[in-house]
Amino acid sequence: MKRQIILKSRPVGLTVPENFEIREITLPELSNGQVRLTPHTFSVDPYLRGRMNDGPSYIAPFQVGEPIVGGGIARVTESLAEGFKVGEYVSGYMPWQEEIILDSAGLNIVNESIAPLSYYLGVLGMPGLTAYFSLLGIGNLKKGETIVISGAAGAVGIVAGQLAKIAGCRVVGITGGDDKVNYLLNEINLDVAINYKTCRDLSTAVEAACPSGVDVYFDNVGGEISDVVINKINKFARIIICGQISLYNVTSPPAGPRIQGLLLKRSALMQGFLINNYTSKFTEGVQALSLLVKNGELKYTNTTYFGFEKLPEAFLALFEGKNLGKLIVEL
Amino acid sequence: MKRQIILKSRPVGLTVPENFEIREITLPELSNGQVRLTPHTFSVDPYLRGRMNDGPSYIAPFQVGEPIVGGGIARVTESLAEGFKVGEYVSGYMPWQEEIILDSAGLNIVNESIAPLSYYLGVLGMPGLTAYFSLLGIGNLKKGETIVISGAAGAVGIVAGQLAKIAGCRVVGITGGDDKVNYLLNEINLDVAINYKTCRDLSTAVEAACPSGVDVYFDNVGGEISDVVINKINKFARIIICGQISLYNVTSPPAGPRIQGLLLKRSALMQGFLINNYTSKFTEGVQALSLLVKNGELKYTNTTYFGFEKLPEAFLALFEGKNLGKLIVEL
Repeated sequence: MKRQIILKSRPVGLTVPENFEIREITLPELSNGQVRLTPHTFSVDPYLRGRMNDGPSYIAPFQVGEPIVGGGIARVTESLAEGFKVGEYVSGYMPWQEEIILDSAGLNIVNESIAPLSYYLGVLGMPGLTAYFSLLGIGNLKKGETIVISGAAGAVGIVAGQLAKIAGCRVVGITGGDDKVNYLLNEINLDVAINYKTCRDLSTAVEAACPSGVDVYFDNVGGEISDVVINKINKFARIIICGQISLYNVTSPPAGPRIQGLLLKRSALMQGFLINNYTSKFTEGVQALSLLVKNGELKYTNTTYFGFEKLPEAFLALFEGKNLGKLIVEL
Repeated sequence: MKRQIILKSRPVGLTVPENFEIREITLPELSNGQVRLTPHTFSVDPYLRGRMNDGPSYIAPFQVGEPIVGGGIARVTESLAEGFKVGEYVSGYMPWQEEIILDSAGLNIVNESIAPLSYYLGVLGMPGLTAYFSLLGIGNLKKGETIVISGAAGAVGIVAGQLAKIAGCRVVGITGGDDKVNYLLNEINLDVAINYKTCRDLSTAVEAACPSGVDVYFDNVGGEISDVVINKINKFARIIICGQISLYNVTSPPAGPRIQGLLLKRSALMQGFLINNYTSKFTEGVQALSLLVKNGELKYTNTTYFGFEKLPEAFLALFEGKNLGKLIVEL
């Protein structure tokens, strides 16, 4: 018997294990155009938290009683879809199930000879493409500029950091653990890495790390960390709002310093970035990133949980900052 | 004996008449390259408040004991500068004095045959150019979009509103008086004008005025009015931060709702605009605006105080919203 994980109840504030439930399922025969899949790896991502709330957002909310749907890599075990052969691996959005039937339309065949399968959920997937297109479009990096990245050791952050180094920038990463600081400095060679949990005063640390101020702020976390960084932006700074993980679990709209006055004084730009607006350019982005990965110019790492039933636990771990790089669940 | 108005003390919070002092002056002989001027009209603008504070900003603070300097129109009464003839009128930054000596470098000769002299402080000056270049660059207006303008009956707002109408937008103005609402609706033909002081609930009023949401928000005021409008932005909205007059007199950084999450969800852009970054394009902007003024497509109005000694009073009136259009002081 195969299983699925459904949203049992909507979280209020932080998600708890009781918001999920594992159920048994039996799947029907395939229809034309469909494939049957055995999932290999699921991606757990902060944005899923938003879909657990009711109400309008940029994607429809999950329905209570229905399975969670997220990014995944799966093997084709049966196919009534042209161009999809049994034994091939595909990536796409898929329900948290041990067996899946999907229309082939939203699936892409992935190539294990270019990179490990899991990379198609990370550096060659949504997080990598997010870093790539947001830096290209909003970041507009110039050689010698200083960029600060929050959530620097996360799935998006480690790609953003390396792309900024390739662009010739001074790169400062903010993160929440000594292992992560070590990774940022010694594995992907950022110029400075700050552990916001242990540095005495974040403002002083950012100031010391950015003697020429902050030209670009790549924000994955929001909240008080961002307040500190935004205070140090230079004239014509660009602030990429890519994630706000520190605020995804709040139940009422949080207050903070009004930043409009500072954006005005510094002629600065702040823009929200959603990768869903760039689907038409994915092929171009994956090609560019694949090349860097193959050349060894772009490293990547995962934090892996093993076993289907670990999906909820892995998701909760995201909000405790337990992951270095992409958090995935391998079956 | 001629007079000048100096900054006697830095305001704390709201500016008060005691922050200014009138002094007598005697000016020397001209040096080469200089002109002697008799001012005709002074411009009073909200940004002057920022210069009365100490500390770094985008322009240097005024010094205590030194005259206030602002935009003005003056007649040349003596000239040792090539290209400047006695009797011509010039515009530029000038000290609040009844007689002025300046290098000719920062001055532009203005042409009374195109528009009334005072227009060179408004629609053909900094406020008009601010509306023009910020809408062109950040606003990126498309026909049929909805734009909301706060401070809509101010010096910048009335130009922005008319330019947005010319671009084919639905234009909603927010202002603070019935005379202003009347002007916006009947003189410059905005689609909706809201008096935020008398409407029962601003959120309901903005919602009713913008049935398709807000594509562009042109913000001159900041604070709670902006909170309401920003909540209603559409996907890919642009927010032009042009002024924050409601916050210029605060003594500590104000708190407000954190807006980054909303910018993220809506893939929206927010950018600060300072006209000082566009000096190289002024000629182009003045030409475009002059044409519209001459054709009668762009109307303009002033609120005029008379007499040199009225300058401080006129400046204070800005923050009480007493002006319709550009606030000027004629000598």
